Amino acid sequence: MSVNPKILIDCNRSKANLKAVFEDVRFSDITFRPHYKTHQSIGAGMWFRNAGIKKITVSSLPMAEYFAAGGWDDILIALPLNTNHIAQYDALASKIKLHLLVDNNEVLSLALSGIKNPVSFYLKADAGYGRAGWPAENTREFLQAFQLIAKKGTHSFSGILSHFGNTYGAKSVEEIIDINLSSITRLRVLKEFMESQTGMPCPLSIGDTPSLPHYTPEMLKNISELRPGNFVYYDMMQVALGSCNINQVSAALEADILSMYPDRNEVLIHAGAVHLSKEICLMPDGKPGFGALVRLYEDSIGEVIEGCFVDRLSQEHGILRVTPVFFKEFRSGDTVGILPVHSCLMVAANSK
Amino acid sequence: MSVNPKILIDCNRSKANLKAVFEDVRFSDITFRPHYKTHQSIGAGMWFRNAGIKKITVSSLPMAEYFAAGGWDDILIALPLNTNHIAQYDALASKIKLHLLVDNNEVLSLALSGIKNPVSFYLKADAGYGRAGWPAENTREFLQAFQLIAKKGTHSFSGILSHFGNTYGAKSVEEIIDINLSSITRLRVLKEFMESQTGMPCPLSIGDTPSLPHYTPEMLKNISELRPGNFVYYDMMQVALGSCNINQVSAALEADILSMYPDRNEVLIHAGAVHLSKEICLMPDGKPGFGALVRLYEDSIGEVIEGCFVDRLSQEHGILRVTPVFFKEFRSGDTVGILPVHSCLMVAANSK
Repeated sequence: MSVNPKILIDCNRSKANLKAVFEDVRFSDITFRPHYKTHQSIGAGMWFRNAGIKKITVSSLPMAEYFAAGGWDDILIALPLNTNHIAQYDALASKIKLHLLVDNNEVLSLALSGIKNPVSFYLKADAGYGRAGWPAENTREFLQAFQLIAKKGTHSFSGILSHFGNTYGAKSVEEIIDINLSSITRLRVLKEFMESQTGMPCPLSIGDTPSLPHYTPEMLKNISELRPGNFVYYDMMQVALGSCNINQVSAALEADILSMYPDRNEVLIHAGAVHLSKEICLMPDGKPGFGALVRLYEDSIGEVIEGCFVDRLSQEHGILRVTPVFFKEFRSGDTVGILPVHSCLMVAANSK
Repeated sequence: MSVNPKILIDCNRSKANLKAVFEDVRFSDITFRPHYKTHQSIGAGMWFRNAGIKKITVSSLPMAEYFAAGGWDDILIALPLNTNHIAQYDALASKIKLHLLVDNNEVLSLALSGIKNPVSFYLKADAGYGRAGWPAENTREFLQAFQLIAKKGTHSFSGILSHFGNTYGAKSVEEIIDINLSSITRLRVLKEFMESQTGMPCPLSIGDTPSLPHYTPEMLKNISELRPGNFVYYDMMQVALGSCNINQVSAALEADILSMYPDRNEVLIHAGAVHLSKEICLMPDGKPGFGALVRLYEDSIGEVIEGCFVDRLSQEHGILRVTPVFFKEFRSGDTVGILPVHSCLMVAANSK
């Protein structure tokens, strides 16, 4: 018997989330390569396959091996490649079309000579986020990388990839749009340079969930591929960013009420940092919290329980801040749902 | 082949950490019931057994079942009991001496009638932390709980348990001592009340790692049992709190360097929030971070790499803030060790 806490996925909400994006006319000329680090599930992957998705993104070698075993045959590992894993990349490349990411030409040289089966390389550009990638203006590095790949001959070039992760910290829709406009402009200049120097197409791959609702045709000009992942489940961070409404969040933690403290309007649940992660964001009423409360039904997520949220977390304890009316309806042993701050981390924490 | 990131435990450091505590003369009259949520490992448990430990604490039912299967036969689940798990508690109680925690008399009544095999109950007192437990002054609730247990007859009473988790937020040693003095005083009053009313002994069980170095004989008077857990590994939070020195931290994450960014004194490693957790604390140089850097040897943790720490984390990416000299010694593909902010969460994240 599986005991709580455990994750409940509302499949109908997830499928509706996918449909809303994949059928959006703004994206009719775009290839989607969605990021599967959010759900890490062969089952959830089938919803994407049924929507026509054939190419996917993952964030680690074990995740790539898992999805390859599940029948996916065009996979990008979107973490700069690890030279200690060359044998494993080579083995995987004998089975599927494997794309690797690189932002260092010493690393690229090792990979080019070490990997015998053909792989394809994306070059990572930093367009302002400041995490990984060559700054988009370092054209010399990108050109050298392209030339190293071309000279070797065995492997191919997938294009320039960038992740505008700074949208997650945006304080307004305007800021999300500004980040996109300035970042895309930097990538377009790089693309033009590369195409003029190489005479070959240089596709651009971008895409994060906070930006999804805000793309305009002008912004998507010259963009070949989008790689959002979180939108399959969404979460409270995306609600706070305005990427979705709270009724679209489709992953919840099923947590049992252990004890009630009406004197302090608090409730103890079995749900801790090991289940929800310590990621924090603003809840709908403006206070920081670790998750919002919802009713759960057999296979679906129900109504938000207004004014109630996860206030504190330790390893296995969660303290809910609740309203006085909560104590009239709920008691110890009842199960509530928690909409997480970050669904990717919640899923990763509960699925290992 | 197991690939990085993965955990390295320095067994010699761990055993020395245990020895320092278990052989401390201050604790010669105390029973230890150490918390195993830190290591969650049958192997690490053997070091405790070899040091004479027979009673243990865990924080969930699956953890209790795991250690029971590993030969431990006196286990406390130190999370208020879940009425949905009564059948599982009953099954476990047929095999071992099981202690359950309670802070609600409705819950206790359900457990008393539902569990057929004898268990023993600790009553949880809140002595100032404000997470779980009856406030220590609610003597009526404690007495009622004792009477419910006595009336039923099948089960027994283990004593009053409290966790001074507020020591983790202390800003100084004085504050840790103050929290202990005021909390222990509240528990002693409760103990005296219970013993006077029941005519039976009312043992007190306390104990967290930040308090360990600071107990005096006066503080430990009337305390029967200590339940610290973190001290087997320690971590950067305990270094910041002054519970240990950085060379006692015995759990590290082995992480590979993926890319180097000397222009911004940063380095990309494969180690993210899913491996280290998003817990943050002050690093030795006073800046907040997600872990400190160390050299690793085959089975041991080596020297601190001065001035280097984990500055930012996303799901699988970690960004190190490093010194210019770092780039002279290390390159992509090299492995570094990360001393985590919170070893319990790191171990939980990597051992499921």
